[in-house]
Amino acid sequence: MTRHIDLNSDLGESLGAWRMGDDDAMLDIVSSANVACGFHAGDPAGILGTLKAAHARGVAVGAHVAYPDLVGFGRRNMDVASSDLVADVIYQIGALQGLAHAAGTRVTYVKPHGALYNTIAHDERQARDVIAAIRAVDGSLALVALAGSPLVQWAQDAGLRVIAEAFADRAYTPQGTLVSRREKGAVLHDSALVAQRMLRLVREGVVEAVDGSLARVQAQSICVHGDSAGAVEMARAVRMALESDGVVVRPFA
Amino acid sequence: MTRHIDLNSDLGESLGAWRMGDDDAMLDIVSSANVACGFHAGDPAGILGTLKAAHARGVAVGAHVAYPDLVGFGRRNMDVASSDLVADVIYQIGALQGLAHAAGTRVTYVKPHGALYNTIAHDERQARDVIAAIRAVDGSLALVALAGSPLVQWAQDAGLRVIAEAFADRAYTPQGTLVSRREKGAVLHDSALVAQRMLRLVREGVVEAVDGSLARVQAQSICVHGDSAGAVEMARAVRMALESDGVVVRPFA
Amino acid sequence: MTRHIDLNSDLGESLGAWRMGDDDAMLDIVSSANVACGFHAGDPAGILGTLKAAHARGVAVGAHVAYPDLVGFGRRNMDVASSDLVADVIYQIGALQGLAHAAGTRVTYVKPHGALYNTIAHDERQARDVIAAIRAVDGSLALVALAGSPLVQWAQDAGLRVIAEAFADRAYTPQGTLVSRREKGAVLHDSALVAQRMLRLVREGVVEAVDGSLARVQAQSICVHGDSAGAVEMARAVRMALESDGVVVRPFA
Amino acid sequence: MTRHIDLNSDLGESLGAWRMGDDDAMLDIVSSANVACGFHAGDPAGILGTLKAAHARGVAVGAHVAYPDLVGFGRRNMDVASSDLVADVIYQIGALQGLAHAAGTRVTYVKPHGALYNTIAHDERQARDVIAAIRAVDGSLALVALAGSPLVQWAQDAGLRVIAEAFADRAYTPQGTLVSRREKGAVLHDSALVAQRMLRLVREGVVEAVDGSLARVQAQSICVHGDSAGAVEMARAVRMALESDGVVVRPFA
Repeated sequence: MTRHIDLNSDLGESLGAWRMGDDDAMLDIVSSANVACGFHAGDPAGILGTLKAAHARGVAVGAHVAYPDLVGFGRRNMDVASSDLVADVIYQIGALQGLAHAAGTRVTYVKPHGALYNTIAHDERQARDVIAAIRAVDGSLALVALAGSPLVQWAQDAGLRVIAEAFADRAYTPQGTLVSRREKGAVLHDSALVAQRMLRLVREGVVEAVDGSLARVQAQSICVHGDSAGAVEMARAVRMALESDGVVVRPFA
Repeated sequence: MTRHIDLNSDLGESLGAWRMGDDDAMLDIVSSANVACGFHAGDPAGILGTLKAAHARGVAVGAHVAYPDLVGFGRRNMDVASSDLVADVIYQIGALQGLAHAAGTRVTYVKPHGALYNTIAHDERQARDVIAAIRAVDGSLALVALAGSPLVQWAQDAGLRVIAEAFADRAYTPQGTLVSRREKGAVLHDSALVAQRMLRLVREGVVEAVDGSLARVQAQSICVHGDSAGAVEMARAVRMALESDGVVVRPFA
Repeated sequence: MTRHIDLNSDLGESLGAWRMGDDDAMLDIVSSANVACGFHAGDPAGILGTLKAAHARGVAVGAHVAYPDLVGFGRRNMDVASSDLVADVIYQIGALQGLAHAAGTRVTYVKPHGALYNTIAHDERQARDVIAAIRAVDGSLALVALAGSPLVQWAQDAGLRVIAEAFADRAYTPQGTLVSRREKGAVLHDSALVAQRMLRLVREGVVEAVDGSLARVQAQSICVHGDSAGAVEMARAVRMALESDGVVVRPFA
Repeated sequence: MTRHIDLNSDLGESLGAWRMGDDDAMLDIVSSANVACGFHAGDPAGILGTLKAAHARGVAVGAHVAYPDLVGFGRRNMDVASSDLVADVIYQIGALQGLAHAAGTRVTYVKPHGALYNTIAHDERQARDVIAAIRAVDGSLALVALAGSPLVQWAQDAGLRVIAEAFADRAYTPQGTLVSRREKGAVLHDSALVAQRMLRLVREGVVEAVDGSLARVQAQSICVHGDSAGAVEMARAVRMALESDGVVVRPFA
């Protein structure tokens, strides 16, 4: 029976004068911070601040690498050639490593963001580019990947440590994959329900799918969001439900 | 008597489809490559290519950090706050370290570019920001600084190794400082003359100033340019003159 | 006795996923919207939305032109050459004109933003560049300028219509200039007091200076802010005080 | 029998310190200049210079609108939402109109660039976005589109004037469409051959396809390139062949 789990969230996504999310609140909830690297969000000073705050709370730090697209927030698919994608990912990891070192901490994993995350879950060419980039910088960095996606196997075959993750606020198919956001009911809004689902996921390795069946989902980390007051409240509910049942929330690293 | 010297040049300054300079030619001439970090020039894939080429030739690599200004090529003064400037420099060094690692080499020094270079030679606030950034990433990184500028002392006082540099194609005042580019004769165009001046600099620690007097210039590195065919030819002439006289051109690191 | 006045505010400053200010609330308060043009803030889709909303409410539209600096929000001084500054300003005005036309409205004035605003209030070279840019696009565009600054005269001499503006939440010197933000008390926070000050400005052409004397301030527009809930409330208080006393708030154009 | 034709080329694609192409040489050859608008290439000052040079030679000016992607030079497919794409295109056209006015000329057409060009030739959603953007700015602007593509009809149905274009240096299928660049022989390098093919296109409305058959291609403009010395030479050869046979090269507008 699993007695511990990691909670991760996207942080450091402010940009200059623009604020996004409540990093301080989320750093009290999660055990791993996916920190923006400047391509979809984040400026160096803001990123550094988030890294220092994460370090102060013992929260692990990952590089939240993305396509180069500030206006689209890294959510738009881009057909980036392998030579560019590999180098873009290395660049972002390196930049975050430098800032993390300055903040007294270090980068322990990589989690692609947005459109890049979704693409490499299934697109082998871009997946291999990201894997190659991670290995070129530091093969001991873990990759956080969508549980049940082909990426998990590709990355493991390449020798990377893979952390499969589930999404707290998402509905699942009977096959243990995410229900597409285009479908009704894909995103869950009831904090108490979400918290109980994640507790069951940790305890039993299953989530109730949209058809009422139990889907097996192997996850070493749970992604929670912090981009609204409601999201922070839900994240807190997930953590409290886990801890109330004796599950330790801690970084996977 | 000095028997060796470093030659450095700005490289990796192409951007996407835009070419700048002849990196391959220059990497056969210099011993240290100041590699753009993406803020004034350079995209990750292009930078990675330059780093691999530098590594293949045994050329040392430095982070050519700059203000965030592609259109202005980092040549425009910007009043960047300390919190931003420190983080910007860390970010750039880190990004280059990541790419350098992937290329099989490592960053051994930092050389600020353009307006940042000129500003920190004399502006103590921004100078201390850059020094703090370097120390936050890796205190063993050297700083390449304008010979004779206050920056040399500030950085040494902060515990950094400083490499003072001279400019091959620039005229000097009797005090050993650069003649302003706004003045006539500030930039030299005669390759043979430049080569002889640099040989004398290495051998005797002096350059002939604009008034005919001899100015003392303490330099462990000489900056040469590669942004035109004439510049490459001049750089080659400098190297040949040095080597013909028995001076070894090698990285300072 | 002045029976009408313009209220202007900075709008359209969101960027992609990042929100800034409450454009809808402010468009119910002001008569002129200084709309970001993409250099310090604003993406095309967001700008277009703001322009449509302004048009729907009969709010006049101005081009809020800036230095090219998203991370610094256009608040950092940049030493931009005349050839660049002139073209940058033309580009931004043109882009906003295109979007305004698509929104069913049109650009009637130009108000420089942030560091550019402060610089051209006193720096003649950059002031003349901005003036030249406006004249090159459309000499009938008005320029909103700091009341009492040399820019007012420079622009008038060049044939531009100048709208001098006062700042609702700022303290004034006895000479009618702004107290520097670096000094204590430079920014006012009491909505009721601010509203009464602006009413007096409109009615009598004076504001009480920091030393208690009355400073003459000639202004055809008053700038109010909307970047926080308190700012919106203050702006609303200013409008209500003016209207309660019979002053019509309307665009200067 | 056609007695005149338009020659167009991509210009204004330099960026800050980076040069691309030989605008001066090409402006002596073409009758229409597709001028970059800052999203894939071009900075305002450089664009303004190109517009002035085009105006001085009587060359017509079009807005070469693109995806926002400097590093990828607008050649990477991006999944841009309609609200963004429409506004991005309006913004670019407006910016160029402003600069064109300042240069004494005006924008008479729109030609999408790179990946956007290729995508809207066949993707109806993005095609309709671009068409809507053009109509929102100025319905009298012509659209330069790939001869034989569905876009031609879509744009005509929407009331736009469409200028179908052929590519001088490209091989054609028997159906009158371009041979994919991925296939051997897709790009032609023999200037004399290319010139004769284009003369025949203008005179007879046909090009010899890769299988030796004659493909009908209806084109009111021919695209030539200027991004290398060889490209400029080929463009010149096309113009000379046309003029030697009595065809007048002139803008379609």
